[in-house]
Amino acid sequence: MGSRIYIEELSKHVGETVTISGWVYTKRSSGKIRFLVVRDGTGMMQAVIVKANVSEEVFNRFDELTQESSLRVTGTIRKEDRAPGGYEMDVSGLETISVAKEYPITPKEHGVEFLMDRRHLWLRSARQHAILRVRHEIVRAIREFFDSRGFLLLDAPIFTPAACEGTSTLFETDYFDLGKAFLTQSGQLYGEAGAMAFGKVYVFGPTFRAEKSKTRRHLTEFWMVEPEVAFNTLDDDMDLAEEFLEHIVASVLKNRMPELKILERNTKFLENVKRPLPRISYDEAVEILHKKGIAFEWGNDLGGTDETVISERYDRPVMVHRYPSQVKAFYMKRDPKNDKLALAVDVLAPEGYGEIIGGSQREDDYETLLARLHEHNLPQSAFEWYLDLRRYGSVPHAGFGLGVERTVSWICGLDHVRETIPFARMIYRLTP
Amino acid sequence: MGSRIYIEELSKHVGETVTISGWVYTKRSSGKIRFLVVRDGTGMMQAVIVKANVSEEVFNRFDELTQESSLRVTGTIRKEDRAPGGYEMDVSGLETISVAKEYPITPKEHGVEFLMDRRHLWLRSARQHAILRVRHEIVRAIREFFDSRGFLLLDAPIFTPAACEGTSTLFETDYFDLGKAFLTQSGQLYGEAGAMAFGKVYVFGPTFRAEKSKTRRHLTEFWMVEPEVAFNTLDDDMDLAEEFLEHIVASVLKNRMPELKILERNTKFLENVKRPLPRISYDEAVEILHKKGIAFEWGNDLGGTDETVISERYDRPVMVHRYPSQVKAFYMKRDPKNDKLALAVDVLAPEGYGEIIGGSQREDDYETLLARLHEHNLPQSAFEWYLDLRRYGSVPHAGFGLGVERTVSWICGLDHVRETIPFARMIYRLTP
Repeated sequence: MGSRIYIEELSKHVGETVTISGWVYTKRSSGKIRFLVVRDGTGMMQAVIVKANVSEEVFNRFDELTQESSLRVTGTIRKEDRAPGGYEMDVSGLETISVAKEYPITPKEHGVEFLMDRRHLWLRSARQHAILRVRHEIVRAIREFFDSRGFLLLDAPIFTPAACEGTSTLFETDYFDLGKAFLTQSGQLYGEAGAMAFGKVYVFGPTFRAEKSKTRRHLTEFWMVEPEVAFNTLDDDMDLAEEFLEHIVASVLKNRMPELKILERNTKFLENVKRPLPRISYDEAVEILHKKGIAFEWGNDLGGTDETVISERYDRPVMVHRYPSQVKAFYMKRDPKNDKLALAVDVLAPEGYGEIIGGSQREDDYETLLARLHEHNLPQSAFEWYLDLRRYGSVPHAGFGLGVERTVSWICGLDHVRETIPFARMIYRLTP
Repeated sequence: MGSRIYIEELSKHVGETVTISGWVYTKRSSGKIRFLVVRDGTGMMQAVIVKANVSEEVFNRFDELTQESSLRVTGTIRKEDRAPGGYEMDVSGLETISVAKEYPITPKEHGVEFLMDRRHLWLRSARQHAILRVRHEIVRAIREFFDSRGFLLLDAPIFTPAACEGTSTLFETDYFDLGKAFLTQSGQLYGEAGAMAFGKVYVFGPTFRAEKSKTRRHLTEFWMVEPEVAFNTLDDDMDLAEEFLEHIVASVLKNRMPELKILERNTKFLENVKRPLPRISYDEAVEILHKKGIAFEWGNDLGGTDETVISERYDRPVMVHRYPSQVKAFYMKRDPKNDKLALAVDVLAPEGYGEIIGGSQREDDYETLLARLHEHNLPQSAFEWYLDLRRYGSVPHAGFGLGVERTVSWICGLDHVRETIPFARMIYRLTP
């Protein structure tokens, strides 16, 4: 038997006799030949059991094997282009480890809630494998991008003493004798402290929003990566964002094309994700809406439909910058040329996927930031540490946040974010 | 000026005139020569201002620069082995960005609480830079290890519906109409579902414990990496753990030696972290304690002092396996040779750092696992999904968890875990 072999390594073992440990995906019988499609988590392999080549005991063992039963199967590996995965095993031995009860997920169609209730089993299907492998590649590419550019990973705290933008959408927990702790919505403010210490950092972790939203784009718990760079302006921020998106998409196209095929993803829009990405101002975006006959009022935030109308005009993600400051957060710097505008940018994915990145240059002037805090009725005491970043060597700086699940959803071409994370948490779902 | 240059890249710019944007770390004056040590987050550089070479305005600007004031400094780069970082700049221009108020953290000694209250500023010091760069390298090495071995990253949920090992040490939050959600203590059970789907996975994220512990080893929020592998036994688990530790330590020694020097870390014990690591049974560990005259009763868990006594006998981490099942979790498989023992392993770091890894082979038999749930008074309904993993193609499997902060603490040789994470959360600390 030797060391353990995985199906993904079969190409290196053609002509050899190996043992694969895995589970029955499907099986079929054709007289004196029996076929098992075995999965081991790394791929699928067809195992061919010929009556003349095995003992009667082994041949009959096939009968007890139900879908998802676990087994060890031994045999010689042969290249076979027609087989799933491209290799077949001529079986010489077969050991049943555990016979599975009647498996609830069958090749027939199931409702989404049925599948989400069985998410721990649904993960075994080819489609979910493809999505979660793309997710892995996106996370890997994100870290590679920042690690190779000298950014320090700054793990921001999950427990925070105060709300960044009000407490209405925060989860809270009792925290010993210190009162309430709130689960972070964003590590950005901590990222800013990190940027002042390390020049360029990225925060990457789960974030939480207690929004009562039931849309196809909302999870209560989702992963976000947030780079923050000292001395960066809004233009630098947009340069970084487009280079970053290009890198992520190129990595998936390079390393996960088989998975995109399984997902039947039309990769045309993905192949277009190359610099430069179009950059339009909020004012120009409003003009686009008005030309389309949409009664959009200047000063409002762009809604989902508005974003779709705008992004439809481009063959790749589009950057919309300089939003009205009234719809943006207190920490965003105002445009020196127009105080009504914030130096903010949202990146809208094509094909109606909407915002995947939100960023801005931050307010770096102490007095201005203090005034903003008061305008937003935020308690100064909770932000003294944040104000310190403007007291002690303030510099221009900028950053953005990219939501991992929305990015996975867009790149995989999914209808809903619930499949982009192993165990989705939504307003009506906390299990399994 | 050209594109932005960071201090860590100075070796490529010797003889060139460049601009560095950063902060004043220290300064001193010596007649007609003035010295600024500038930090930019990537390193330190001495900038030399010679009166004869600059305008009077630039020369006098030196006077206003307080510690941590931000500035842009332009000049020619020269190799200078005696200077911090190895390069000096002969200054031709200097622009003040922001004059810092009197900086609270000075070269004098400060109390730990004083520094922790100013953690957002303390991060700027050389020692904290070194620690967090080692942390980054450890995280990078962890991901590299699993990514290069075909493990799928499985982000387990933070919100969980039920407690893995009782609710007494769990943080809880209201979850819409679904009652309470608990913050995860471990992603292991979800990792097991992942292993049955993908063969080999790793969970890597923050975990939470509401323990009222004030020791130097406890945080309420800490990062844990948890691999889980289908078909692995306890021996395989120990093989994986020792290969993993060897990789992490070797990566830090290879890539972060300057940081270990700053921390004055004696790397002798780190250089010993090579396979094979010693493996002793719990019984053998008890014998060691008894020979040392310690009145340790068989059946108890090893305490911190016990761990120190045991690990002192070895020059590298030691694996202690087969603990009494009564002190271990319900999901651990019993030793088929002795039902009183669990197929568990703890890895104890040398130099008194104690447990850094805890793992086990998992119970894979449905009936046995069900009986264990009842013995531990755990509600079966909350674990039906977990039992499903034994209903549908159960296989032997094993995994472990490594605490990132304890590993950073050990590798850096620190007294307390509070410096191993950017913003530590402890029973008495929730700020900044």
